[in-house]
Amino acid sequence: MAEIRNLRDMLIEELRDIYHAEKQITKALPKMLKAATSEQLKAGFEKHLEETHGQIERLEQCFELLDERVRGKTCEAMRGIIEEANDTMKEDMEPDVLDAALVASAQKVEHYEIASYGTVMTWAKHLGFDRVARLLSATLDEEKATDVKLTQLATKDINARAAKAGMAA
Amino acid sequence: MAEIRNLRDMLIEELRDIYHAEKQITKALPKMLKAATSEQLKAGFEKHLEETHGQIERLEQCFELLDERVRGKTCEAMRGIIEEANDTMKEDMEPDVLDAALVASAQKVEHYEIASYGTVMTWAKHLGFDRVARLLSATLDEEKATDVKLTQLATKDINARAAKAGMAA
Repeated sequence: MAEIRNLRDMLIEELRDIYHAEKQITKALPKMLKAATSEQLKAGFEKHLEETHGQIERLEQCFELLDERVRGKTCEAMRGIIEEANDTMKEDMEPDVLDAALVASAQKVEHYEIASYGTVMTWAKHLGFDRVARLLSATLDEEKATDVKLTQLATKDINARAAKAGMAA
Repeated sequence: MAEIRNLRDMLIEELRDIYHAEKQITKALPKMLKAATSEQLKAGFEKHLEETHGQIERLEQCFELLDERVRGKTCEAMRGIIEEANDTMKEDMEPDVLDAALVASAQKVEHYEIASYGTVMTWAKHLGFDRVARLLSATLDEEKATDVKLTQLATKDINARAAKAGMAA
């Protein structure tokens, strides 16, 4: 960790954390997409993978606007979330149950991002970095929308199918 | 990881993950409380520490209702979030900036829990474990309320004071 004294330093540190987190997500999502059975869930992951690339670009713009070098630092929380998702995908479970588990993992990813982007967006605003705040706010809206979409998919049929698969086993 | 085949197995696995996460939180919160400067933030952490003990008891009731042994399994995501919070507390930063950073860490904790309790509560409902679902729902409400409270504290004055401390440095 670089030396942190003021809120601007903390903002940069947090942007590096979320930048690394997004990079990890671009590696995890294709595996989750491949492991999913529900076509709607696959489509959802595909759409979010595209969005993630755009979110990485926005973060790069933020570093530029703040006159900082574009670089990440290991996000231990995201590493943990993805490690657990990878473990789940190795289990020999019913495809419908795996879909429910994938939604759960994806919602942990989204909630980490909602907390993180909520923080950096607010800090940027307080520090008067309005363009940075607007970029981060756009991403925050996408993360919230993805979380809602995942809840809808789970509620619509994924959880019901997973519960049935469970009862038959 | 135990062998997971159906949604009930997955529910137990996830309950063990969040049980371990809550135990980690009971160890982290006293350090965060000690490191905080804002009296309101200290009070907020203290209240949440009490709540966390109650949430652990609810999880123990869930295991009993499901006729499963009470035990946790390492929650890597929470380990990562807390590890980063500990790193932050080691930094030599302005007290007001540290308060803002502590709120950020606490909101990551809350969002992890919101995602996790949201999932297990829904799964329990789908599997017909209504009493378990009600216990989890009560905790989910507390986690959401804590997140809102943290946002209020940050918005009220913590972020503004942190930004000022940053400008003076």
